[in-house]
Amino acid sequence: MRKARGAEVPESFYHDPLMYQGGSDDFLPPRADIPLKDTSWGCDMEGEIACITDDVPMGVSSDEAANHIKLLMLVNDVSLRGLIPGELAKGFGFFQSKPATAFSPVCVTPDELGDAWKDAVIQLPLMVDYNGDPFGRADVGQDATFSLADLVAHAAMTRNLGAGCIIGSGTISNQGPDGDPGKPVSEGGKGYSCIAEIRMIETIASGEAKTRFMHPGDTVKIWMEDEKGHSIFGAIEQKVVEA
Amino acid sequence: MRKARGAEVPESFYHDPLMYQGGSDDFLPPRADIPLKDTSWGCDMEGEIACITDDVPMGVSSDEAANHIKLLMLVNDVSLRGLIPGELAKGFGFFQSKPATAFSPVCVTPDELGDAWKDAVIQLPLMVDYNGDPFGRADVGQDATFSLADLVAHAAMTRNLGAGCIIGSGTISNQGPDGDPGKPVSEGGKGYSCIAEIRMIETIASGEAKTRFMHPGDTVKIWMEDEKGHSIFGAIEQKVVEA
Repeated sequence: MRKARGAEVPESFYHDPLMYQGGSDDFLPPRADIPLKDTSWGCDMEGEIACITDDVPMGVSSDEAANHIKLLMLVNDVSLRGLIPGELAKGFGFFQSKPATAFSPVCVTPDELGDAWKDAVIQLPLMVDYNGDPFGRADVGQDATFSLADLVAHAAMTRNLGAGCIIGSGTISNQGPDGDPGKPVSEGGKGYSCIAEIRMIETIASGEAKTRFMHPGDTVKIWMEDEKGHSIFGAIEQKVVEA
Repeated sequence: MRKARGAEVPESFYHDPLMYQGGSDDFLPPRADIPLKDTSWGCDMEGEIACITDDVPMGVSSDEAANHIKLLMLVNDVSLRGLIPGELAKGFGFFQSKPATAFSPVCVTPDELGDAWKDAVIQLPLMVDYNGDPFGRADVGQDATFSLADLVAHAAMTRNLGAGCIIGSGTISNQGPDGDPGKPVSEGGKGYSCIAEIRMIETIASGEAKTRFMHPGDTVKIWMEDEKGHSIFGAIEQKVVEA
């Protein structure tokens, strides 16, 4: 979460997570194509972390929620940016603008991360390549407003969560070193985990977005490495194709 | 869908359904208590119809969608009205304001309804009793802006739906005979399928809502009868209890 220049984030955003409910019936395999009917829908990847819980009782605290996080994985939370403004304007949140999601081929128990799992936040960079070039290397732990345990507790405030429930982090994003918008990887920055963010930063810098959303043929790879450079979750590797 | 006095419904609402995604991991059995932690959350019932689909391919038309409706049932789509304004103001739609939902004990195939299943809309009243008194007798087919097939097609525009997907109708509601707000059952009207609607009508009539939301001990019964008075889906019968 961060301020776009000249815009204050509402204070509530720092203690009240923004969370939506997505479909659970139609996931994409980690190497499956992303079917897209219309490029005007503005197809975007969103690199995220997610956890899988066991049975979580209603009203659990954030501290208790941490113990219900049983598995961790990576997510490509595909978004259709062209459909979002119309849907949010209706007031009921995302629906058609959030098509099927892909998860990493491997989930791991939190202890597998060793010291990189701290206070229910992963302390490692999320690697995102776009069309074969480094696009995102954002630290998951930096600028994380909420831990995964906070998000599980938010989801469980008024109802139980069933074992197998998936809770995602939201797109991983880092500020620059002085709280400024982060730079692209090609300029020595940590880059971005979605195209919408680079478009926002291009718009701030030059008045217009230059990077277009994904078209058929565009590819995204999302993975994470341990301190020895070994892949922890395997990789999400997807190509957009015409549906 | 209807106009509150003095307020125009946006034109898009007549061709673009308002739909949200709800939890699928934590349902209430048809006779289970509704756990409520805090009466200020504004617990309300919402009497609705829902269908269960088979596998629905992305981009299906409304006509095609009708053939994917395999089962019908009733729903109590419990809502926490006190949490809705804050959540909708954040822009991402419902989450904590939509706790676990209950379904009728029986689902039926559409052909079991005979002539009362027409153009993917049920043409029978939804019976709602609140604390043992008749509260709602609204005709499901009257004032239905969208058929269940329209709603399935809307849900499948950008992704497949998996077999077992549940699509709900939204709260059943009828206008009065002259397009005026419907009257309570006790005054000869068809009543309401949720408390929020009678509160809105009380507010229009007298400047303030008189019927409070559900407290522990309050009960709701939702069912539907065929032309011979036989219950089609069994009954949802629930009591609010302190959580």
